[in-house]
Amino acid sequence: MARIVMKFGGTSMAGSERIRRVAGIVKRQQEAGHEVAVVVSAMAGETDRLVNFCREANALYDPAEYDVVVASGEQVTSGLLALTLQSMGCKARSWLGWQVPIKTDDAHAKARIEDIDSDAVIASMAAGEIAVIPGFQGVSPDNRVTTLGRGGSDTSAVAVAAAVKADRCDIYTDVDGVYTTDPRIVAKARKLPLVTYEEMLELASVGSKVLQTRSVSLAMKENVRVQVLSSFIDENAPAADTIPGTLIVSDEELANSNLEGSDMERQLITGIAADKNEAKVTLTRIADRPGAVASIFAPLAEANINVDMIIQNVAKDKGETDVTFTVPQADLARAQALLEERKDAIGYYRMIAEGNVAKISVVGVGMRSHAGVAATMFKTLADRGINIIAISTSEIKVSVLIDTDETELAVRVLHTAYGLDAAA
Amino acid sequence: MARIVMKFGGTSMAGSERIRRVAGIVKRQQEAGHEVAVVVSAMAGETDRLVNFCREANALYDPAEYDVVVASGEQVTSGLLALTLQSMGCKARSWLGWQVPIKTDDAHAKARIEDIDSDAVIASMAAGEIAVIPGFQGVSPDNRVTTLGRGGSDTSAVAVAAAVKADRCDIYTDVDGVYTTDPRIVAKARKLPLVTYEEMLELASVGSKVLQTRSVSLAMKENVRVQVLSSFIDENAPAADTIPGTLIVSDEELANSNLEGSDMERQLITGIAADKNEAKVTLTRIADRPGAVASIFAPLAEANINVDMIIQNVAKDKGETDVTFTVPQADLARAQALLEERKDAIGYYRMIAEGNVAKISVVGVGMRSHAGVAATMFKTLADRGINIIAISTSEIKVSVLIDTDETELAVRVLHTAYGLDAAA
Repeated sequence: MARIVMKFGGTSMAGSERIRRVAGIVKRQQEAGHEVAVVVSAMAGETDRLVNFCREANALYDPAEYDVVVASGEQVTSGLLALTLQSMGCKARSWLGWQVPIKTDDAHAKARIEDIDSDAVIASMAAGEIAVIPGFQGVSPDNRVTTLGRGGSDTSAVAVAAAVKADRCDIYTDVDGVYTTDPRIVAKARKLPLVTYEEMLELASVGSKVLQTRSVSLAMKENVRVQVLSSFIDENAPAADTIPGTLIVSDEELANSNLEGSDMERQLITGIAADKNEAKVTLTRIADRPGAVASIFAPLAEANINVDMIIQNVAKDKGETDVTFTVPQADLARAQALLEERKDAIGYYRMIAEGNVAKISVVGVGMRSHAGVAATMFKTLADRGINIIAISTSEIKVSVLIDTDETELAVRVLHTAYGLDAAA
Repeated sequence: MARIVMKFGGTSMAGSERIRRVAGIVKRQQEAGHEVAVVVSAMAGETDRLVNFCREANALYDPAEYDVVVASGEQVTSGLLALTLQSMGCKARSWLGWQVPIKTDDAHAKARIEDIDSDAVIASMAAGEIAVIPGFQGVSPDNRVTTLGRGGSDTSAVAVAAAVKADRCDIYTDVDGVYTTDPRIVAKARKLPLVTYEEMLELASVGSKVLQTRSVSLAMKENVRVQVLSSFIDENAPAADTIPGTLIVSDEELANSNLEGSDMERQLITGIAADKNEAKVTLTRIADRPGAVASIFAPLAEANINVDMIIQNVAKDKGETDVTFTVPQADLARAQALLEERKDAIGYYRMIAEGNVAKISVVGVGMRSHAGVAATMFKTLADRGINIIAISTSEIKVSVLIDTDETELAVRVLHTAYGLDAAA
């Protein structure tokens, strides 16, 4: 017997028929002997409808009242799923954010979960009742409804899993797991049975939008085993003991596990991610003195512009240097304006901005102990004539910046070079 | 300065534009110097939509989960009205049922309000904030969402008004007040400036469905002054000091008031109501012994069938009697089945059921001190050849049962006979 938290998104909850499918999947887990809690999103389209009402009511809406309105979408689906489970003979009840309670801070519309009192929910689950919990919502210290920001239901599910000490948090999505790369780009992409939190973070933050990054960080912090799997499975099939999706675990569990995908033959590289939403800024001829670089990045940080790769060229003989860095494309105009304002303070000669760049990353915990990963990457790209604009590396990732037009080509040749292609 | 609770129904809350109209009306009251709380219904059609979802999920739905789903409709409109008021420069916040809290019993889907902790709401109103409260919803002793049953928002409004010790509870509807009779039947029907709780109860329970009967009973019990008025007033007009609708007050206030409509010239009869949803049952030749009548009505009461008029004919020489009574048409078939089953136990000879009857009532607190009200009624109807099947009287009402086909004629001639017709 295990304790399992299951999470279903808006597509899975869109209408009575789909909710019935979900209830079937949930029931199978209970019948397999597990204690089950379910975290649900609002029906697809509902949150947008409610957000529109708020905008019509007040363009500059008060986030506290916005939360009251938009949290209702998940309230509805949690009640409906409880009703549907009951109609199938299961004991079930809904637990709204304030009932659990899921305590958050008071940053309405983007609240952070601070604590979950799980005693009542655990007791209810232990008594054979399926706990149905609306995602996305919580309650503030002064007893008002809060929401976690769009897509927050993944985070709710992981937080609930941590609070009830679940053996696993199953996130049902419209894909059946995490792939070595985007299958729309590489037909031979393979589903990964096992990835680590860090790998998932790197893969998610560079474009594989299977899970909210925030939920993966929380899972890593709380050591919650997360499985990503498809909600389009046969709800009449018995609950499998094997893992049909991708399991996301800690380094330790990966090392000690005998699960499929954890063995010695695990590839050095887990996956390849591409992110086209990057823009590059170069400031030329900055004085090579302490504090010069800080004067560039401090104002960007203050303006909440996320700087990713930073490359400082070797100082030239004149005591000057060029600094190149990337920001999200959406923030490029704001970044340029900020730096233009501070041209004299920073003391650069020219600003060169380029929106047309993509970041390609090879990711894998295995590379920590293996030299040559970066070398393979550079050689592979060079062989195909792909120009590398910038490079950055972390313990489990090597990223390069290239021309956007060459994204798909780069991903394909790297996928082959690292031996990730599925057998024909 | 007064403290006023305003209530708006689903038609008034259906969509952003109408909510803006409502906000305009509310704002005027605040600008007139009043402390204001607003109770709102869900958008027209929304509760039906949510009820349908529940039915699709589970035909025999758990009322506790049903409440979670359907209460969301008022949650949405309360948030949206608060946002809209804010956009007009008013301070406003929503107070959900569990936040106030509005404490009810645990009879889900038909809960009764037990207590309202009004301190926080009163403090907020005193600070110039408009309190927006979803109607229809509350919280049970074990902290679950409850609803009061369809149409419960009127009751919510009166209960809130009692709890915050409001000077008045204004119920905005799609009519502009309470009339002497249904204006669709009698073109010369007049709007009443003032009626008593008891008159309103008699008028409401016999067909003038302006207010929920339950809300009027509560207003009487808590002595809340209720005004019924139209939500289709000009929201840009300044808040009037006069009462544009119909004010519903206690006997004492009516007697001591110098409000229009309370003077000596107030008509003896306040209004005339018609109810076509009656059915008549006659049981013939029942033994005229103690307990015989009880054996008829006890099983009907147990089955929650509401018996209204009861007429027992003069005992005949054989020690036998006929008993006639009325039940709601919707319950007639059930009543017949129950009585058929118990034919021997009750000991009647024949059961005669008739669905085709209407109850016409003349209502007025003035009739207490005036003889002749009933006599006028009987003579007026007899003059037009309308046959009276049965009669019942209370302190402030005389009702007769007649053939349904003669309903409109009866109402018109009585309206004229009691001097209720508006001046041409």
